[in-house]
Amino acid sequence: MDIFSLNTSKKRILIIGGGFGGIEIARRLDTRQYEVLLIDKHNYFTFQPLLYQVATGGLEPDSVAYPLRKILKKNKDVLFRLTEVTSIDQVSSKVMTTIGEIPYDILIIATGAMTNFFNMVETEKNALALKSVTDALNIRSFVLQKFEAALLEKSKEEQKRMMNFVVVGGGPTGVEISGALAELKRHVLPHDYPELDISMMEISILESGENVLDVMSEFSKRKAKDQLIEIGVKLLLKQQLKSYDGREAVLADGTIIETSSLIWTAGVKGNFPAGFDATSVVRGNRLLVNDFNQLVSNENIYAIGDVASMQSGAHPMVAPVAIQQAINLAKNLNRKTKNDRKKFVYKDKGSMATIGRSRAVADIKFLHLKGFFAWLAWLFIHLMLLVGFRNRVIVLFNWVWNYLSYDRAIRLIIRPYKKN
Amino acid sequence: MDIFSLNTSKKRILIIGGGFGGIEIARRLDTRQYEVLLIDKHNYFTFQPLLYQVATGGLEPDSVAYPLRKILKKNKDVLFRLTEVTSIDQVSSKVMTTIGEIPYDILIIATGAMTNFFNMVETEKNALALKSVTDALNIRSFVLQKFEAALLEKSKEEQKRMMNFVVVGGGPTGVEISGALAELKRHVLPHDYPELDISMMEISILESGENVLDVMSEFSKRKAKDQLIEIGVKLLLKQQLKSYDGREAVLADGTIIETSSLIWTAGVKGNFPAGFDATSVVRGNRLLVNDFNQLVSNENIYAIGDVASMQSGAHPMVAPVAIQQAINLAKNLNRKTKNDRKKFVYKDKGSMATIGRSRAVADIKFLHLKGFFAWLAWLFIHLMLLVGFRNRVIVLFNWVWNYLSYDRAIRLIIRPYKKN
Repeated sequence: MDIFSLNTSKKRILIIGGGFGGIEIARRLDTRQYEVLLIDKHNYFTFQPLLYQVATGGLEPDSVAYPLRKILKKNKDVLFRLTEVTSIDQVSSKVMTTIGEIPYDILIIATGAMTNFFNMVETEKNALALKSVTDALNIRSFVLQKFEAALLEKSKEEQKRMMNFVVVGGGPTGVEISGALAELKRHVLPHDYPELDISMMEISILESGENVLDVMSEFSKRKAKDQLIEIGVKLLLKQQLKSYDGREAVLADGTIIETSSLIWTAGVKGNFPAGFDATSVVRGNRLLVNDFNQLVSNENIYAIGDVASMQSGAHPMVAPVAIQQAINLAKNLNRKTKNDRKKFVYKDKGSMATIGRSRAVADIKFLHLKGFFAWLAWLFIHLMLLVGFRNRVIVLFNWVWNYLSYDRAIRLIIRPYKKN
Repeated sequence: MDIFSLNTSKKRILIIGGGFGGIEIARRLDTRQYEVLLIDKHNYFTFQPLLYQVATGGLEPDSVAYPLRKILKKNKDVLFRLTEVTSIDQVSSKVMTTIGEIPYDILIIATGAMTNFFNMVETEKNALALKSVTDALNIRSFVLQKFEAALLEKSKEEQKRMMNFVVVGGGPTGVEISGALAELKRHVLPHDYPELDISMMEISILESGENVLDVMSEFSKRKAKDQLIEIGVKLLLKQQLKSYDGREAVLADGTIIETSSLIWTAGVKGNFPAGFDATSVVRGNRLLVNDFNQLVSNENIYAIGDVASMQSGAHPMVAPVAIQQAINLAKNLNRKTKNDRKKFVYKDKGSMATIGRSRAVADIKFLHLKGFFAWLAWLFIHLMLLVGFRNRVIVLFNWVWNYLSYDRAIRLIIRPYKKN
């Protein structure tokens, strides 16, 4: 593929992945020095922190996705191609894709993370994940289909199984989707299904640790727990899933939970194309990089964000790390001399999780918030992080609407969920 | 299926189809007299007049769809089931569905219309239709995928074929989607694809009649034509498509148009389940009804909207007819004595079509509007017709946004289009 101009002395930088890290660096690289090409298998950027609201009918998928070409509109010299990478050939410095081979001088891998089922094949086949827009739409359809099916079911036992939602993993995603499901139970489903006894619906979080939101402060952990219990989420702590066949979740201690709705948020792992040997890969299936985000095993390849793990210490797999690494790497690459390069230092601005209507926890430096103010802070920060003014206005309107009406209006089954 | 209560003397009314007619009558039937059950294969109502804006990235699909359960929220006694009808057994008064047999005393068929390819099997296989939310999302993905593919194509001829959009049918849908595609060409695609020569993109309307918008006034027809030409839509009038294989459209006079993007809006036909013999069915595959929307062949069955054709004269297949028939039929059924029944009389409130930014035509009684004022009238009326305040606000905001920014922000390929 001659996507890059061939008659130029500029170095060719190829970026794989249009997530938080990929779009940040694509916009910051100096196109007077470099030819820049971004590739992604989707034509849009996904704002993952709000996917759980798409899954629970609170937001349109179109509000949390943003066209990559629109993001690059102001960077006219940065090219974009919609394609999937099949493998990387480090020897010839080429990336193999569904649209052909793409040569590079510098390769930036910003491919993020994928759901990690830890080789639990049966669970992977039967559980729902939440890492992409399609995943979120699948959950939305799935939940609604379960209630439609429960209406037709005569056996109470089967009805209960259909309405028993087990969320595996007590991290932010697990907590947030559980909270949103609890809100559906409290405010939306009783109106939609007056014929059903919605009190039979259960939402549980299955977490192997001692508490939910394990990386947060003691205060936040405790308050998150309290708030989850307040809105009716059952906490199954220090419990581990052993297997799930679509009807029964078997725990490590032998307990069996009857559920046909299991959402897996208990792990992610680095997601990179074939072409790296075992020495480049460390814990969490991440690529080992130095303090400049340069692959330890190849100085022409960089990795940023979730897919990268620094030798001097692995960073959390969250958006701020990806964004800060992208900014630092762009600066380093734009510098004329290699000696001016700056090491990456992560500025942790805190973390937060929303739990439901007016409920959240937030650790911002030494400040710990809970309840309504944490919730407002969460809303504000996520609104600001969203890409695009149009999306911000629509999300804000939906939030105000959902708050005032106690509604989640977007409960549509546009493409019914079908098991693979 | 014992969805209806069995121990009641109330008559059971089963409504098939949650379109304009179906939702109108479901909300109006007297549930003190009747048990009412609405069934539909989707869990949402589709506002078809705006589907073309979903197809061209101007609106979210979620804004033109509305959950049926939410529509029925105020009518607690009206039941809803998500199911597909397989056939109707008039002898035993039962409807066969994917969730079992449903008995009825009175059956109301409000199943609307489907795309009519007039037995052109090859064309049906290769053309895009625009009758459902899924169709609209398919067109959105398809158009964007064509431009991504054109970027990779070396042959100018193939590029032209990919960028040549032929819309068959010069009715409102054909005119509206052509206008929207022309706006994409003028304002959006040149920014997204600076590497492509967008001037190669062509949009043509292929219409067998002498003019587009054949049912409108002479004034509107002439002005629509002028406005379409102004924004660069080619009109191929008095031309008929003979066949389309996905690469070449062959016209009746032998002309060949090289196009890989053909959108078919040239015909619809009544869409009803199996179970009616030929004597019940008339022109346009519609069910023959008397002036009370009662099937001529079975007094317990009614048909309203697109699927019905009155003995005393067929009505146009448009939303106002369906709504007015639903209102009239509900009143008739709610009346205690059969002699009070009123015949249906259609009040034609006019018709309109939008052609693009600030361009439209409207016939409202003796008033004929064109251009900006017709466009404003079109916007206002469609906004008012939309179901739900949330959808109205979001659509209005999107329209203002699109108008001011010259943008169509929702150009996402969430589920890539794949040929069956």
